[in-house]
Amino acid sequence: MFNEYQHLRIPGPTPVSPEVQREMNRTILGHRSEGFSRFFAETLHKTKYIFQTKQDVFAVAASGTGALEMAVSNVVEAGDTVLVVVTGVFGERFAKIVKAYQGNAIILKFELGRAAQPQKIQEVLESHPEIKAIFVTHCETSTGVVNPIKKIGDMAKKSNALLIVDSVSALVGMDLKMDNWGIDIAVTAAHKALGLPPGLSLIAVSEKAWKRIRQHHGPRFYWDLLSYKKNIGKQTTPFTAPVSLIYGLSKSIDLIQQEGLEQGFQRHNLLRDMLRAAIPALNLELFVPNDEEASSTVTSIKGSTHLDVEELRRVLRENYKIDVAGGQQNLKGKIFRIGHMGYMHPMDMLTTIAGLEMALKHLSYPMELGMGIRAAEEVWLNAENIGQ
Amino acid sequence: MFNEYQHLRIPGPTPVSPEVQREMNRTILGHRSEGFSRFFAETLHKTKYIFQTKQDVFAVAASGTGALEMAVSNVVEAGDTVLVVVTGVFGERFAKIVKAYQGNAIILKFELGRAAQPQKIQEVLESHPEIKAIFVTHCETSTGVVNPIKKIGDMAKKSNALLIVDSVSALVGMDLKMDNWGIDIAVTAAHKALGLPPGLSLIAVSEKAWKRIRQHHGPRFYWDLLSYKKNIGKQTTPFTAPVSLIYGLSKSIDLIQQEGLEQGFQRHNLLRDMLRAAIPALNLELFVPNDEEASSTVTSIKGSTHLDVEELRRVLRENYKIDVAGGQQNLKGKIFRIGHMGYMHPMDMLTTIAGLEMALKHLSYPMELGMGIRAAEEVWLNAENIGQ
Repeated sequence: MFNEYQHLRIPGPTPVSPEVQREMNRTILGHRSEGFSRFFAETLHKTKYIFQTKQDVFAVAASGTGALEMAVSNVVEAGDTVLVVVTGVFGERFAKIVKAYQGNAIILKFELGRAAQPQKIQEVLESHPEIKAIFVTHCETSTGVVNPIKKIGDMAKKSNALLIVDSVSALVGMDLKMDNWGIDIAVTAAHKALGLPPGLSLIAVSEKAWKRIRQHHGPRFYWDLLSYKKNIGKQTTPFTAPVSLIYGLSKSIDLIQQEGLEQGFQRHNLLRDMLRAAIPALNLELFVPNDEEASSTVTSIKGSTHLDVEELRRVLRENYKIDVAGGQQNLKGKIFRIGHMGYMHPMDMLTTIAGLEMALKHLSYPMELGMGIRAAEEVWLNAENIGQ
Repeated sequence: MFNEYQHLRIPGPTPVSPEVQREMNRTILGHRSEGFSRFFAETLHKTKYIFQTKQDVFAVAASGTGALEMAVSNVVEAGDTVLVVVTGVFGERFAKIVKAYQGNAIILKFELGRAAQPQKIQEVLESHPEIKAIFVTHCETSTGVVNPIKKIGDMAKKSNALLIVDSVSALVGMDLKMDNWGIDIAVTAAHKALGLPPGLSLIAVSEKAWKRIRQHHGPRFYWDLLSYKKNIGKQTTPFTAPVSLIYGLSKSIDLIQQEGLEQGFQRHNLLRDMLRAAIPALNLELFVPNDEEASSTVTSIKGSTHLDVEELRRVLRENYKIDVAGGQQNLKGKIFRIGHMGYMHPMDMLTTIAGLEMALKHLSYPMELGMGIRAAEEVWLNAENIGQ
C-alpha cells in the first residue's frame, strides 16, 4: 500500500509540488523549436529574480557538481592560484575540481560545524595578492552551516579576485544578492530549494567574471560559458536543454514569486528554528552550535554512544517513512541530516519531528514523547504572533 | 507556493496514492474496445476480494447516493414495506430514497452518536413479517458510528427480508463479509477507503436478491441491475464506463491486496485509536462515546461553548492546511469530523493531531501542546509491540 509513500527530508532531491509535477508532463517540444525557444528565453529571464541579478543566467543539463566544474573550468588555468574556503565536503569538492584543472589551491579550512571566518579569509587575501578567485560554499550541505557570503563579497569587491559561490543547497532558501553582494559566479541546482527533480543547474555570471572568461584558455567544451552566452542571444542552449525540467523551472519560479523571496526566506528560517527547538527538547544535540551559523535549509544532528544514527535512519525510513541523510566522509555514522527546503511547509516539520519522536522511542532513546512537537509548535505560534 | 498543498482529512474524497494517480493517466481506451473490455472484466473480478464475495460485483458511473438509489430502485416497489435503520444522515437518505420510490418505510431511529441495537431491529422484524428489506448504513459518515452488520445479517438470514448495506464509507476500511454475513446488496463508492477520486460506485448482489430483482417491476433505467448483469457477461457496462476510474480501481485493489484486507482493517483501527487517544488528551470530547461503536474510518469531535467548530475548521484549513468536515444537518456547528481512511498512514494521523494542537492553541483553547501527539504516539508504539 505505502510503497511510494514517503516524507523526503534529505537535503535534496526535495519534494516536488503538484503544480511543478504537472507542468513537467507537458508535451516535450523539440529543443530547437520556436515554441520551446520562446519559452526557454522567458524562463531564463525569470531566473534573474531568484539570483537577484541583472546579469544573464544560464541553464545547463547537469547536476550541481557539473555547475561547480563549469565555474572552475571557465576561470582557473593551470598554475593559477585560487583560494578555496572549506567548511565541509562541498568546499573539498571545489578544491578537488580546482586541482583537476591544475590550479594551485590555497585551502582555508574551518572546523566542521562552524562557518568560515571572514577575517581569516581577509588575511589570506592580503598575504597572497596573486589569488585570482575565491571559491566558497554558501550552505555547506554536509554540515548544515551557512557561510557569510555578503562579508566575503565585500572583500572580493576590493580585490581583483573573482568570488565564486556554490549556492546549490541555499539559493531561494536563503538570501543571495548576486549583484549587490559582489558575487561573480553563483551556481545552484534544480533539486534543492527550487523543488525540481535533479538534472538541471543554473549559473549566473558577473561582468567582472566575463572579462576573465573571455581571456581564458583552459580546456572546456560542454562547460564553455562563452558558447552558452553566444546561444542565449538565439534563445537556445549550445547542447540539448532538459526540456521538462525547464517547464518545471518556469512553474517553480512562478510559485516562488507568488510567495515572494523574502517571505520564502522567513519560511525557511521558521523551518530551521522549529527543528532547532525540537532537537534539544528531545535530548539530542545540534551539530552546528551557533544559531547564526545554522543553515535554513539543512540541519545536522549528532549521534552518540546512546544513539546509532544509521540505525535511527533505518527505523525512520522503514517504520515512519521519513528519509533523512547520514553524515558524509569523516562524519559518516556521527551525524544525521534533515533537509527542509523548497516545497516544505511548517506542517511538514511537525510531521518530521513526530516521526523522529517515534523512532527515538522505538530505539529506547531516553526522551519524552511530545516534547519535540511542543517545542516546535511554540516556535511556530510565536512566529505567527510576530506576523500578526 | 502552497496553493494546492493540503492534508485532506474529510470522510471522502480521500488522498489518492501516486500509483493510482499515474494509473488513471493511462490512455483513455474506447469503453467498448476489446482492450478495455478485457481490462474491465479483470478489474470487476478483482472487486470480489474487497466485498469478500463469490457474487458478481457491478460498477456504475455515479457517486455513492446513485448506488444507494440503485439498491432501492431494484427491490422496492410502490407499497412495499421495508425497514430503514437510521443512525444519522445517511440512514435518513436511504429512507428518503425509499419514499421517492413510494415504499412504505418503517424507520427505526437510534440516538445520534450511538450504533443501532440489533435486538430493536429483531423486535421490528418480528412484529412486521411483511418487511421485504432491511436498509442499514455500515459506517454512518455523519457521526462516525459503525453499525453491527454481522448481527443484523444473522437476523436477515432467518427472514425473507433482504439485507441492503450502505458500506460507502466503510468497505475496505472495516470488515464486511458479503457472503458470510448474509448481505444481499452491498454498495460502496470510489472516493472513500478505496482511495480514488469520486465518480464510481460498486454494487454487489446476492442470489437471494437476484430472485427479487428478476420479479421486480418498479421504474428504473440507468439503475437497472438486470441490464448490468446482462452486460457483465459481455465484459462491458450498459452505459459508458468511467474509464480512468476503472484504471485507478484496478491499481487500488492491487495495493489493497498487497497490504491484505485484514492488515488494512488493523491499520484503520490504529488510525482510529490514535485519534481517539489524542482527543481527550487535548481536552476535547469524542462524539461517539463507546469505543466498540466507533468507526475506524471517520471520527467526530464535539464543539462546546469554548470551541466554535466552524472557526476551528477555518483555522485548520487556512493556517495549517488541514481540511476536516463539519457536522451535517442537526449536528452542524456542534461537531467536526476527521476522515482517516484509504491511503492514510499512521504518520498522517500524527500530522493531523499536530495541526489540531496548533489550531486549538491559536484559538486559545485550554489544552497543552504536545499532549495529543504523545497520546497518539503511545498508542502506535503499543500497537508496534503487539505486532512484534
